[in-house]
Amino acid sequence: MRPRDTRVKPRSHVSLEDVPTDGAPVVGKDKAAAIARLDGYRVRLEELQELLYAEGKHRLLVVLQAMDTAGKDSTIRHVFRGVDPLGVRVANFRAPSAQELGRDYLWRVHAHVPASGEIAIFNRSHYEDVLVPRVNGAIERAECERRYRQINDFERMLSETGTTIRKFYLHISKDEQKKRLEARRDTPTKRWKFQPGDLAVRAQWDDYRAAYEAVLSATSTRHAPWHVVPADDKLARNLIVSALLIEALEGLDMRYPEPVAGAARTPII
Amino acid sequence: MRPRDTRVKPRSHVSLEDVPTDGAPVVGKDKAAAIARLDGYRVRLEELQELLYAEGKHRLLVVLQAMDTAGKDSTIRHVFRGVDPLGVRVANFRAPSAQELGRDYLWRVHAHVPASGEIAIFNRSHYEDVLVPRVNGAIERAECERRYRQINDFERMLSETGTTIRKFYLHISKDEQKKRLEARRDTPTKRWKFQPGDLAVRAQWDDYRAAYEAVLSATSTRHAPWHVVPADDKLARNLIVSALLIEALEGLDMRYPEPVAGAARTPII
Repeated sequence: MRPRDTRVKPRSHVSLEDVPTDGAPVVGKDKAAAIARLDGYRVRLEELQELLYAEGKHRLLVVLQAMDTAGKDSTIRHVFRGVDPLGVRVANFRAPSAQELGRDYLWRVHAHVPASGEIAIFNRSHYEDVLVPRVNGAIERAECERRYRQINDFERMLSETGTTIRKFYLHISKDEQKKRLEARRDTPTKRWKFQPGDLAVRAQWDDYRAAYEAVLSATSTRHAPWHVVPADDKLARNLIVSALLIEALEGLDMRYPEPVAGAARTPII
Repeated sequence: MRPRDTRVKPRSHVSLEDVPTDGAPVVGKDKAAAIARLDGYRVRLEELQELLYAEGKHRLLVVLQAMDTAGKDSTIRHVFRGVDPLGVRVANFRAPSAQELGRDYLWRVHAHVPASGEIAIFNRSHYEDVLVPRVNGAIERAECERRYRQINDFERMLSETGTTIRKFYLHISKDEQKKRLEARRDTPTKRWKFQPGDLAVRAQWDDYRAAYEAVLSATSTRHAPWHVVPADDKLARNLIVSALLIEALEGLDMRYPEPVAGAARTPII
């Protein structure tokens, strides 16, 4: 399995049950070699981010969405460890505030899009607005379809104005989530994260899966593709996300800016 | 001539030479009566803004664009005089900063869209990005067409999420601009406004007119119509803009929120 095989083809129908959550094949039999591979990816990502920043021309937007415990925070920590924080910003989108609810749902995310030379990571995103209200019945199907179109228009505009977009759905199984919630509950240092609300959302697993399938099917575009990343295995998940971001940045054909004419011969007084 | 006759029909071709800049027929023969009419409009606009704010449901976005000296500032001053400043915000968009140029051109305007219950006035707007670079040759025709589409998508999303949009092109003749620039130059209290750059832009009058014609033809939509307002006569201009904003707000069928049950019988201790 190659990382790029996780890409959702535009206008295809996604059935998450048919997509593996087990990424072990990506790691292979030699775990130490896979860890070394991830270290190599980190070095490469650091170089590419430096180049992105120096050139100051392109922008990279990374969107992370997932069921609870699938590892959004952990992915950010492991993939971007070592990358210069000056050029990477994480925007966390939680339940919207009254001020945010007073505008369209794209308002708060637009404020946080990357500037030229920057990487912005959306930890949750505008996609929450086609997931939570859909599952809770707060919006009708027609409104949901309208939002998919609005989101596609918005992302196309971002892409056309210089932003490279990669969207990752971290895909875990219901069994794996059970294990992780149990670990959260039973490990003293993790227990603070355990919230009864997690179980209420878990009870709606099938509804959320259906909502995600609809989102992935409707909003994976050439400009802003979704990747369904197997996430039961954390190392595999990190390898795939890293490899795909490297591929995206390498595709930009970036160059360091030309030095000023005569710079090499300028005496330093 | 009725105020609504200034509306640009979607997908129609606008030829500004064929549209009058003289609004005298709107004022009529009795100027005192017209001034009284404008006073009445102010009172009505104040009432409607209060209702908009109290209901806290709808949002009104007013976009003002025009050639130099056509009176954008003056329109804001005269139409909104008396309206509670708590519920009206003016956003002035000048030449973009380095920070703004580092994102898509809709980024800075999206940040200033009205919240529920608010009126936001864009004094210049995202339309500058399909006027100035087009006239200066900084963008190709194809890029310009792409921006029209992006703008239509953006405004449709705003409209679909609860924002009423009205766009006004204040239409003056080249002769009237000459008079106003001369007055600016020759009146000691106005001279500070006079800039040599004004004349450079005036020299590009035909190019800007063509750019405006393309914009008005491509971006007047059902959701976000343009009005070409005759602006040689300031009173007529103010009457038309006021009447159209009143019509837009009256069309929202707003109501004061229901008082809490039993409020009327609550003893005040």
